[in-house]
This record gives sequence, C-alpha cells and structure tokens, in this order.
Amino acid sequence: MPDLDSSNVLNRQILFHAIPQGMPRDEDFALVETPVPRPAEGQFLVRHLYIGLSPSARLRMAGDSSYATGMPLGKPVQGQTVGVVEISRHPDFAVGDHVVVNGGWQDYSLSSGRTAIRVDPLLAPASTALGLLGTSGMTAFVGLLAIGQPKVGETVVVSAASGSVGSVVGQIARIQGCRVVGIAGGSEKCAYVTDELGFDACVDHTLPDLSRRLAEVCPKGVDVSFENVGGAVRDAVWPLMNDFGRVVLCGLIAEYQDQGGLAGPNWFPILTRRLIVRGFLLRDHLDRREDFMRAMAQWHREGAVRYREDVTVGLANAPAAFRRLLQGQNFGKAVVQVSGD
Amino acid sequence: MPDLDSSNVLNRQILFHAIPQGMPRDEDFALVETPVPRPAEGQFLVRHLYIGLSPSARLRMAGDSSYATGMPLGKPVQGQTVGVVEISRHPDFAVGDHVVVNGGWQDYSLSSGRTAIRVDPLLAPASTALGLLGTSGMTAFVGLLAIGQPKVGETVVVSAASGSVGSVVGQIARIQGCRVVGIAGGSEKCAYVTDELGFDACVDHTLPDLSRRLAEVCPKGVDVSFENVGGAVRDAVWPLMNDFGRVVLCGLIAEYQDQGGLAGPNWFPILTRRLIVRGFLLRDHLDRREDFMRAMAQWHREGAVRYREDVTVGLANAPAAFRRLLQGQNFGKAVVQVSGD
Repeated sequence: MPDLDSSNVLNRQILFHAIPQGMPRDEDFALVETPVPRPAEGQFLVRHLYIGLSPSARLRMAGDSSYATGMPLGKPVQGQTVGVVEISRHPDFAVGDHVVVNGGWQDYSLSSGRTAIRVDPLLAPASTALGLLGTSGMTAFVGLLAIGQPKVGETVVVSAASGSVGSVVGQIARIQGCRVVGIAGGSEKCAYVTDELGFDACVDHTLPDLSRRLAEVCPKGVDVSFENVGGAVRDAVWPLMNDFGRVVLCGLIAEYQDQGGLAGPNWFPILTRRLIVRGFLLRDHLDRREDFMRAMAQWHREGAVRYREDVTVGLANAPAAFRRLLQGQNFGKAVVQVSGD
Repeated sequence: MPDLDSSNVLNRQILFHAIPQGMPRDEDFALVETPVPRPAEGQFLVRHLYIGLSPSARLRMAGDSSYATGMPLGKPVQGQTVGVVEISRHPDFAVGDHVVVNGGWQDYSLSSGRTAIRVDPLLAPASTALGLLGTSGMTAFVGLLAIGQPKVGETVVVSAASGSVGSVVGQIARIQGCRVVGIAGGSEKCAYVTDELGFDACVDHTLPDLSRRLAEVCPKGVDVSFENVGGAVRDAVWPLMNDFGRVVLCGLIAEYQDQGGLAGPNWFPILTRRLIVRGFLLRDHLDRREDFMRAMAQWHREGAVRYREDVTVGLANAPAAFRRLLQGQNFGKAVVQVSGD
C-alpha cells in the first residue's frame, strides 16, 4: 500500500479529451497527474487494482443518447474498477475492503458507497469481479436465461464467443442442455472455444463463406442467437433462424464506430418464422443479481464455467487496450491492471 | 338456391395458372367451368356467398416457404369463403347452415368439416365472418393484445390503418385507453380513420416527409407499432420507438412483391431502447378464438368497433380485386361476392 501521506503519491488519470471519430486515437485521451483526493464524511477512497474495459463505453463516448448519458469531456474516462478501500469515512466500508465501483480510468477514486458492490476476495481473484462474477457474467446469465429462454436440445449460436460475455453464454447454454455453436475471429480463438470452453462447434468469421460454414454446424437451424457483434456476423445467422427463434441483442460491437449507419436484415423471417428480436441492457435486470451470484459462484467453484482474461498492465496502456477490444484483438475479458494487490 | 340437379349449373373456378412475377396479372389465372362436385359420405357441399381476399395469399403464390405451403398450380386459388351448406352427407352440418371454409376462388366447394367454422347468420352479415368476426378481426385482437400488450396511456401506431386488420387494431387500442395514430394512403382513408374510426390522428404515407409528420402527432414517441406494411412506412416509425417499445409484425404488404429484397432498419434502437420486435401468425394462436368471439361480438353489438368492406361483385373480378388489395387501393376488408344469400 502506498504511503498516502507522502506528497509523492499522485493520482494518474486518463481524461476523456475529445469525442472520437471512428476508432479512438491516443489524442482523444490525456494522461494527467493530480493529488489523491481525500474522502469527505460519508465517502471512502478506493485504490484501483483493475479497470474493466467494455465495448459499450464507445457508445457513451459518442455523447448523450437514449442508451446512456454521454461521457463528460475533461473527466476521467468512465469504467468499472475493482479496488481496495484505503481511507474510509463511511460507516459500512472499512479499510481493506474489496469493492467494485465506477472509478474510471485512474489510480484512485472516491465513492459514496451508493453504487459500490462489495467483493469477497476469497471467492475468486479480484479481477473476476469485473468479468465472470460481475457485469460480463451477469449480462450472459440474464441475457441467455431471461431473454433467450433456451430449451433442452435447442441450438444456441453465440457471436464474440471467446469474449467475456459470449464465452459465459455458451457455457451456460451447455449446462442447459443445448447444442452450442460459437462465432469468433481467428483459429486460435475458435480452438479455445471448442477445446477449452466445450462448445460443440465454432466458426471463424474472418474466413470467407461464413453463412455456409455456420449452416453446416447448425444442421437443425438456430433457436437462440445471442448477438454481440452485429453487421455481417449477425446477417450470417439470420437465414438460419428456426420458427419461434429468439434473437437476444446484447451488443453491436462491429457497428459501434458508425452508429446508425448499417442497414439491418430483411424482416421477412421475423414474420414468417415468428421470431422475437429483443434488445436488453443489464441495468434493467439488476434484481437478478442474487440469483446470478449464487449460480455463477457454484459453477465457478465446480469448474463448470471457465474464464479467461486479457490483462494489460499499466494505466497508461488503457487507450491501446480499449482499441484492441473494439477491434476484437483481445482474448478474454479485457482488464487493465493498475496496481498490485 | 340454384337447382343443383340441373346440368346447367356449373362450378366456375379461377385456377392458379402461373407463379406471378411481381404484381399478379390476369394471365396468371384461368377461369374454367366444371361440374358441381357431389359430396361423398362425411362431406358437404358449400355454395359460396363471399370470398375473402388477403395480401398474405401473395406469399403463398410464390411457392413453398417456411411461412406456408405454396399454392398448387392448376387448382382453384386458395382463400377463405363463407357460404351455405347445399347438400350434406355429414352428421354435424345441415343444409342451410352458414359456414366458413377454405373454399377457394370458385362457386362451390366440398368440405369434410374438419376446418369448417360454423357462423351464426343472426349475429352479423355473412361477409363479416371473413373479416371483423373472422380472420382479420382475430388477427387484430391477438396481435395487439397478446403480442403488443398495450398499456393505458401508451401511444400505438398502426399502419394500413383503414384496412381490415389495422382498422380493428386501432379501435381495440382506443378501447384499451391508448393514444392511437394511424398511417394510411390518401386523404380519404385518413379522414375515415380519424372521423369514423376515432383514431387520435392519421398520417398520409403518400405525401412527403412521413417521418416528421408522424413525429408531430406522436409527441410522446411510440410504445407499440402494429406493422402491416413494412418498407418506408416501417422505417418512418422506427426512430420514434420509446424505451421498451414493442413492434408487432403482422404483415409486410409493401414487400410481398420482392420477398427478401428490402433491407431492414439499423438495429441500434433495438439494443439501446430495449425493443421487442416480434412476428406472429394467427394460426399459432387459434386457442384464443373463444375469447376473441366473445369480446368482438360485444364490441360489434355496442357499436364500439366499426367496420368497412370493399365488396367486388362477381367471381371473375377476383384477380383484379386482389391486385387492388396488393396496391392498397381497397378501402376496408376486400371481399368478392360470388352469389346472393
């Protein structure tokens, strides 16, 4: 733990400097050093261990929308963090507690505790609170089970299958007794999805003829499509949807750079096959947290759900790691390690 | 009633002669005269009073699909009919009974009774069994209430608002306490929709700037879109959808000529506004018939739901009437009167 009374200890921050055009560049961010803030009564100071990166942050960088309030310029880039309480003036949080807060891209942040989630450091490594046992895992859990409602024997297709959400979706679907097919970018990710995660098949979207190859590994069509990507990947799944199929729209990573630009697929299958296409955001389903934690902690303990992280070391490398995430070059949940436990 | 024992009485049939390219032409049909068929044991003979026309028949003319079995060439064009039993060798149907059967475009048809629906001729004129008190009305009832699930005070937009389904959707939505906005083609239809049917507003899709004019009459956005048309009409509603909005996909009349061709709208609103887009076909919801008949018969009796028919007289005019329907030139439920009561 650094000596916070020393004036040598500073809070490095990566500020959101300019609204990106397309892929965010280094110039859209600014690294500054500021004094470590001191908690007022009712607050506590968190030293960040890890920052979690999420593609949806790119949407908030585009400004206000119905999706979320835009990120303010000149403030640290927003994002979830897991960390340790260093100073507390809050009755419910003690020094040494592990917490998840929306701390942003910086070394330290203050919290009023209102949206802080306490983390049990004995359950799993701290970084998993940002992924498998946090937002990513719960997104997979709610999206697949509550929105997708897969039944035993159905075929579930998951895009971004090696990612933090997709990898968990597929493994839960396997536990539910479904045939699970992933879509991922590159042979290494595909091998991981089938060999390590136990999907029945995985198709590489970087090779030609995606739709035909997908059809081959979905001989009974697709009942649930868990869509993280959009664009050409979504369009390849579309013709394979079975009657009464459900498309769970969780993300459109491929379209985050040019929001509103890409046309969707023709609507005939929605009508003739009686599809349900439904978008969801985790924030509308926070009442399921207890169900989620109970189920996922058990699956994690039993080894029924495997999980992989893509760790970037050093706060200053967060912008580059974020770009890699948007380009699908990460392999597992993207986190930035800010300081050691 | 014609003297069926006279050999002068023939069964005129309009055969499905060729798969249409685009809008069906007269040459795609063939009028022939054949002997009136005689029922075998367990069958009865129906003399058709009215044939109901439905845009979805155009889809079946395109051949087999996931939507329905294609229409066989060389047989009478398929379609619902309401008629009177003339000869019966079936224990449950007596001469003089009124029934709805899938009799097709001809004067007479045989039925085994299996899919026949008995009609009470005292409840309403026989032709309404093909519309308000039949498939069109039940499509509106199930689609709006079971799929769209409108709540009091929500805004419901209905396309093809003067049509047999749309007109009923809007009136049921009014009964549910919703703000109801129609989209229809031409000032005459729009005036009918507001002045006769009691919609709060109706927008003419044949004039420019549909999206802006629609936004003006939906100041609180759109919660339920009941989509019958697709294409540009659908795209005008899309940007107005509210968070948690529902799009009930009942038809894509504007796209029936070039199935699969038109791109859909961008999917961002589905994600960020957590929309549900859901297609339905009435045949999956036949268990709701009793609920429907009870509710609609009462609304009809009370005058709470008004209804209009577009009657074409004479079997030979069915192809032209069908074209008018596909072009949106009908005004109310399209039926062809084949013979008098």
